[in-house]
Amino acid sequence: MITPHLLTPDDLNIKTLGPCKVDSPLASSVSPSGSGSDHFIHAAEFVQDSHRVLLEDRLDRIVKKSHDTLPAFELAGPRRKIFFDPHKLRVGIVTCGGICPGLNDVIRGIVMELHYRYGVKSVLGFRYGYEGFLPQYGHDVMELTPQNVKNIHETGGTILGTSRGDQSKPEIVDCLERMNVNILFAIGGDGTQRGAKQISEEVERRGEKIAVVGIPKTIDNDLMYIDKSFGFETAVHVAFHAVQCAHTEAESCINGIGLVKLMGRDSGWIACHTALASSQANFVLIPESPFQLHGTKGFLPCLLQRLRHRRHACIIVSEGAGQDLISGDGLGNDASGNVKYKDIGLFLKQQIKDYLDAEGMKHTIKYIDPSYMIRSVPATPNDSLYCLRLAQAAVHAAMTGRTEMVVGRWREQFVHVPTPLSTCGRKTVDPEGDLWLSVLENTGQPMVFE
Amino acid sequence: MITPHLLTPDDLNIKTLGPCKVDSPLASSVSPSGSGSDHFIHAAEFVQDSHRVLLEDRLDRIVKKSHDTLPAFELAGPRRKIFFDPHKLRVGIVTCGGICPGLNDVIRGIVMELHYRYGVKSVLGFRYGYEGFLPQYGHDVMELTPQNVKNIHETGGTILGTSRGDQSKPEIVDCLERMNVNILFAIGGDGTQRGAKQISEEVERRGEKIAVVGIPKTIDNDLMYIDKSFGFETAVHVAFHAVQCAHTEAESCINGIGLVKLMGRDSGWIACHTALASSQANFVLIPESPFQLHGTKGFLPCLLQRLRHRRHACIIVSEGAGQDLISGDGLGNDASGNVKYKDIGLFLKQQIKDYLDAEGMKHTIKYIDPSYMIRSVPATPNDSLYCLRLAQAAVHAAMTGRTEMVVGRWREQFVHVPTPLSTCGRKTVDPEGDLWLSVLENTGQPMVFE
Amino acid sequence: MITPHLLTPDDLNIKTLGPCKVDSPLASSVSPSGSGSDHFIHAAEFVQDSHRVLLEDRLDRIVKKSHDTLPAFELAGPRRKIFFDPHKLRVGIVTCGGICPGLNDVIRGIVMELHYRYGVKSVLGFRYGYEGFLPQYGHDVMELTPQNVKNIHETGGTILGTSRGDQSKPEIVDCLERMNVNILFAIGGDGTQRGAKQISEEVERRGEKIAVVGIPKTIDNDLMYIDKSFGFETAVHVAFHAVQCAHTEAESCINGIGLVKLMGRDSGWIACHTALASSQANFVLIPESPFQLHGTKGFLPCLLQRLRHRRHACIIVSEGAGQDLISGDGLGNDASGNVKYKDIGLFLKQQIKDYLDAEGMKHTIKYIDPSYMIRSVPATPNDSLYCLRLAQAAVHAAMTGRTEMVVGRWREQFVHVPTPLSTCGRKTVDPEGDLWLSVLENTGQPMVFE
Amino acid sequence: MITPHLLTPDDLNIKTLGPCKVDSPLASSVSPSGSGSDHFIHAAEFVQDSHRVLLEDRLDRIVKKSHDTLPAFELAGPRRKIFFDPHKLRVGIVTCGGICPGLNDVIRGIVMELHYRYGVKSVLGFRYGYEGFLPQYGHDVMELTPQNVKNIHETGGTILGTSRGDQSKPEIVDCLERMNVNILFAIGGDGTQRGAKQISEEVERRGEKIAVVGIPKTIDNDLMYIDKSFGFETAVHVAFHAVQCAHTEAESCINGIGLVKLMGRDSGWIACHTALASSQANFVLIPESPFQLHGTKGFLPCLLQRLRHRRHACIIVSEGAGQDLISGDGLGNDASGNVKYKDIGLFLKQQIKDYLDAEGMKHTIKYIDPSYMIRSVPATPNDSLYCLRLAQAAVHAAMTGRTEMVVGRWREQFVHVPTPLSTCGRKTVDPEGDLWLSVLENTGQPMVFE
Repeated sequence: MITPHLLTPDDLNIKTLGPCKVDSPLASSVSPSGSGSDHFIHAAEFVQDSHRVLLEDRLDRIVKKSHDTLPAFELAGPRRKIFFDPHKLRVGIVTCGGICPGLNDVIRGIVMELHYRYGVKSVLGFRYGYEGFLPQYGHDVMELTPQNVKNIHETGGTILGTSRGDQSKPEIVDCLERMNVNILFAIGGDGTQRGAKQISEEVERRGEKIAVVGIPKTIDNDLMYIDKSFGFETAVHVAFHAVQCAHTEAESCINGIGLVKLMGRDSGWIACHTALASSQANFVLIPESPFQLHGTKGFLPCLLQRLRHRRHACIIVSEGAGQDLISGDGLGNDASGNVKYKDIGLFLKQQIKDYLDAEGMKHTIKYIDPSYMIRSVPATPNDSLYCLRLAQAAVHAAMTGRTEMVVGRWREQFVHVPTPLSTCGRKTVDPEGDLWLSVLENTGQPMVFE
Repeated sequence: MITPHLLTPDDLNIKTLGPCKVDSPLASSVSPSGSGSDHFIHAAEFVQDSHRVLLEDRLDRIVKKSHDTLPAFELAGPRRKIFFDPHKLRVGIVTCGGICPGLNDVIRGIVMELHYRYGVKSVLGFRYGYEGFLPQYGHDVMELTPQNVKNIHETGGTILGTSRGDQSKPEIVDCLERMNVNILFAIGGDGTQRGAKQISEEVERRGEKIAVVGIPKTIDNDLMYIDKSFGFETAVHVAFHAVQCAHTEAESCINGIGLVKLMGRDSGWIACHTALASSQANFVLIPESPFQLHGTKGFLPCLLQRLRHRRHACIIVSEGAGQDLISGDGLGNDASGNVKYKDIGLFLKQQIKDYLDAEGMKHTIKYIDPSYMIRSVPATPNDSLYCLRLAQAAVHAAMTGRTEMVVGRWREQFVHVPTPLSTCGRKTVDPEGDLWLSVLENTGQPMVFE
Repeated sequence: MITPHLLTPDDLNIKTLGPCKVDSPLASSVSPSGSGSDHFIHAAEFVQDSHRVLLEDRLDRIVKKSHDTLPAFELAGPRRKIFFDPHKLRVGIVTCGGICPGLNDVIRGIVMELHYRYGVKSVLGFRYGYEGFLPQYGHDVMELTPQNVKNIHETGGTILGTSRGDQSKPEIVDCLERMNVNILFAIGGDGTQRGAKQISEEVERRGEKIAVVGIPKTIDNDLMYIDKSFGFETAVHVAFHAVQCAHTEAESCINGIGLVKLMGRDSGWIACHTALASSQANFVLIPESPFQLHGTKGFLPCLLQRLRHRRHACIIVSEGAGQDLISGDGLGNDASGNVKYKDIGLFLKQQIKDYLDAEGMKHTIKYIDPSYMIRSVPATPNDSLYCLRLAQAAVHAAMTGRTEMVVGRWREQFVHVPTPLSTCGRKTVDPEGDLWLSVLENTGQPMVFE
Repeated sequence: MITPHLLTPDDLNIKTLGPCKVDSPLASSVSPSGSGSDHFIHAAEFVQDSHRVLLEDRLDRIVKKSHDTLPAFELAGPRRKIFFDPHKLRVGIVTCGGICPGLNDVIRGIVMELHYRYGVKSVLGFRYGYEGFLPQYGHDVMELTPQNVKNIHETGGTILGTSRGDQSKPEIVDCLERMNVNILFAIGGDGTQRGAKQISEEVERRGEKIAVVGIPKTIDNDLMYIDKSFGFETAVHVAFHAVQCAHTEAESCINGIGLVKLMGRDSGWIACHTALASSQANFVLIPESPFQLHGTKGFLPCLLQRLRHRRHACIIVSEGAGQDLISGDGLGNDASGNVKYKDIGLFLKQQIKDYLDAEGMKHTIKYIDPSYMIRSVPATPNDSLYCLRLAQAAVHAAMTGRTEMVVGRWREQFVHVPTPLSTCGRKTVDPEGDLWLSVLENTGQPMVFE
């Protein structure tokens, strides 16, 4: 594993399949889509490989370091010279793991960019995750064209289907070889990207020239070295409505309590953003800030106090919060290898009930778990835009033969991130940072329940 | 005027009213809101004045500069020592100029933060812009309390009302003195912030200790040195729907044309973001990229060609685009001093009709101008969150006696921006930059219509 | 209990407190609100008591009956003569039972109509259901004015709060007497309306002149003799999105199953309307159409067959469906006296899993229970309109001294329904009627799973 | 033309192509879709031709009439015996006139019902209105299958395209003969249905057996003998938001005026419903209630008075209102033969400005014309449901050989309406009826501006 604060400039370098010798069609005098315009980019401002975005932009933190020791990301975008000849190219796309808003936007964006900007004619969609490469599952491959992806971004989910679970990497590479796929776009979470890296390594081992570029997906927004993950803003948008509902339920009863469990296995990003967006939550519980239920400054006594003063309360809890409080054995792992979490929402609901009953406070708890109503919606407009630009960046990168990388955004700029770096850990909410402080200021809850 | 590329570190320094000697209530053992928690921030990680965010984070652009010549913004956030004693404080808020999504969120955020976190009891809302300070207009002042601002963020517009137009700065300062206002939050655009600066200068001239902090507002997103303005994302969210409608109208007819005029007096931010969010626009016309209507590669021939191939087209035009093409005298200025623009939407509609009629192409044009249905809606959840955090940052800054500044966000971090710097120009879409390139890639339109 | 098909015209008559001798302010030359218009209704077309709407409008069903044996409802609307003198009037409003979209619209509509149209100055809101009348609970009464109800319809829930549970009717009437309340509007379900009837009887026993008018509430839409209940359309509007999500989840996996439990204790109205609105459900299970899980034509084998053909399925189940299938003891009653239902959603999820596992079919089930995210939202525009008109009708009726009645809509016209009639049963989906047939046609499911 | 109050039972009779001798597949033991269920309707409750819904259901209006003189509509729904043999059937669909929410739902509903319930395999979509039948326009016919209409209801507009204008009816029938079309569904407004009647007459003249069934479309909701037109509820849903925006703009300025022009050429249905839905309009101007601008009780003095009291006002005006007030020549007719209306919105805006300027009242007017953002959206869930049921009813009717009719809903029941009856006039808002009274009560405006 890579330790973030020890990163060197080299850790941010991106692997390539070889030198770029082909002129980009974006610079050519005839647009590949034949749309009639006799030039595409008049004076194309292509990105150069030397363009780099600082990992750390706090002056007080870099002030004593020499410039050549500062790690910086490659800027994404089109290059004047590319590696692949677009006319001979066949490209594959696969989506893996749980669904997330924006998957269809990303698929659509890749197909449109390849077809209209680079003139690539053959794009294949592999069905139901990595299963789609393996003949034994019997999933047909889906030809992806501008016509059949035209409106897919208006629907949630993924038209390719998805699945969890590990598949043999050599068999996947067999399939890529057999079908003459030169570029593979892997859209999925940590496990998917680690799988993509293994595919890429197998490709290298065989001496093939297949670029593997990832578009990292996690609704939880816990991607290292990436401002935000696609789908995250949409998740907050919908979660906001769930919290409004919980607040309304709470306000309508005497000692009404609205309890909402939001996604966030290891991080409280959705919980924190939703709390700030709605300004209705009185308590936010996240994995990064452990809490006690009992004890003089514990969560339950604080809740009781709130109810005595205000007669209602609204609580947001991340699914990964408070796992240490729930006794009993672990639940094992899911097909993707993720540890299954115990249900903090139902646990908390029961704990609150027991405590308030014991304190003799009549109350009503409404518990909302909106997860499946969040992850399955189409992306919001701002999220769609983000997906489209990620897709464009991914295509530009792959066309230059870059591989073992994912596209990301770092402080508002699109960049290339080496796959090992992006999967080396999870981005968490800093319990002493500005976001969590905003939440504390907004809710009025104490910094620690202890 | 300040020339951006000649900025020195000093240009980013913030003025203050004097040294901070009061302990922040955020660090105290008793929360000022009396909410019952006997501590607020356990180990408050206060921001220090030395924390600074680089203006330029492209390594290739700073590589030859010494660290002490690199301009950097002060990081926003709570300080351990503040300037004002919260218990004796009276604060004023004013909103000016056109309405914009999020105004009520900002007002609400300021009131809540002042009341609950700092224990400030008196917050006054001045009505209908700078008019509200002048007795001759007869506008009552509005007491702002947590109770009466509780739900205002669910409604568009501003509960304070707004107006355009210049007012006497000495008279405004007379009013502030008369009413013992120690902090003034001015929420408004360029004109408002220039006015705020003049108020601040008049205050200084009189030797008063009144902090004037701005929350800059422009739905157009053309603020210098600020990632995005509040309300902008909401504008794109709604504009997206207008473009969907235009596209639907266009597709339903033979040679149907949907034409949408979007806000953007000097910049195409809303036009570009909306185009990318919807992926439905075929042509995007913005002020930063001048275009010709006629001529072999002009806009109208390209449109004709598109219709011949695809039988429908969707066009987005910024209100400030193509002003050079419209003959006739200027229209003068509005009450805020802004030059009134000629209506490019109606002009273009007529030009298209005349041209296609002359070419003998039967067609249908539907023209949509959704401006008032965009600026008057409540903020989206993500935008609400942004407003709240801007409000928190503004309160923290003002409590330390900072003045002649606005709060902003620079590459995902909240910062302090000197007012002169924020009003020294307008942020425009770089016609050779990555955003415009994404639009060209997405629409397939040529880089220049000439 | 009243047997519907034996209804006589007299069963639809409405009780009144006495003859109407006061001129309606709606006819007067000066509007009571003093809004400046010097007349309100120029030639008011007041409703006459003889205006009646046929209960049965199928010609083939009434063809052999004489006109004077046909039951018909009184038409709602303003009368020229009213019972109460508006200037001396004090009115009470109470909301009971579970929350439902539109409660605040109804409250707002009553207050506005009383204040602006009739010139009534004193309207009191009793808090937290019937508890609000009893001193021992200590709930303050809330003065309701046009100013404080102005924007409440933009929020879900009820600003008055609500509760379940029986309270002493004599004590409630004591309170009404003590506070000089002349009209009570009771907004609530069956239990509430039965309570209202008891209050009305106690009032009559004491010889008081207090009108008790109900606005019947049930999100389930199972009100007898009423086209649709307020909040129902909004419920379908939101449930629609839940079903879209379930469908998206189902389509994204191999053998994906989306299962949505919707409200409907005794009736499948929400389930049927939502299924037809979305056109995405493949199976709809409602209380009115009992079903078998196993057996050759049982639900589970049909589901298996569907999955084999189409690889995904979307199921809607009403909360009251299939209660006979779930073994185990009953769960008792809730505070309103309603029988608690066993959870058909979780039961079905488990049954499907067990069955498909036994059949060796790999599958994924996503279960969505959106109830609290449905009942707590603000009303949709069309529902708001309906609430407003119900409120207007209720005010007109009460002003004439009508009592022991609820307002309703019968075949698109607003009418008065005697309370005993409205609570004599529940309206259910006819399993041989046109709505259920539409559902069968739309889903393709067999008429009976057996 | 038919005079409504003189209608006889015979006027409501429906023409048919001949006796029904084919067994309906809905009754058969094998579902035509082959979905695996071995029966569709267990004990199908087919509708009988004697089932009829009274035109007039007010007891006080029919009390002296004998039952056999009461006009009544045929109830819609499936019949046990049908006219056409489904296996040999080819069906055509055409959409004409302006777009309207729900068009794609209706198309989808017809295709699904024909395919899955009746086993009809060939459904053709004719493109761009009646033009689509005429070879000279060169529009390809579109094969409509369950697969390609599956998701079209999620998009506004019509996938078939539409156009205005008259076409030769004999040529259309030539086309129907040439392509062996047995049933034609014509979705469109008055002109379209009159055209459908002419087609039907030409068919009869030739002795052909082609059923022509209309699904009447008008967003204005002004269809005679039909509760509501499809798309109308959606229109109110969106118009509601436009009025909210106008209200917000108005409230944010001193003497702010929000003016919204809504659809309604001859009727104020959308204006009235939207006003009641939003409760924000202070003035509603509709074609059915003529008004004066000047004079002591004219609209402008009332507006001035309102502004003096409340400082803001929100106005809704139907496009067809006040045409008598606008001087100047007429504008001729559009391609559908409709008289072009002068723009009451812009006229009113100018009149208000001139009047208030003359009165010396500083003010701000924001004018919103949301028409194209209303008619192009997808249907709301409740409207989708309505479209689907209309489509099902239309298919059932056509399968029995009924012709020269449209499907409608009369007092909540689906019925058959003879085409001549449905096009004999327009349904208007009764200025002395209950809806307009609700509007007057809600706005507080005088009954007449004079």
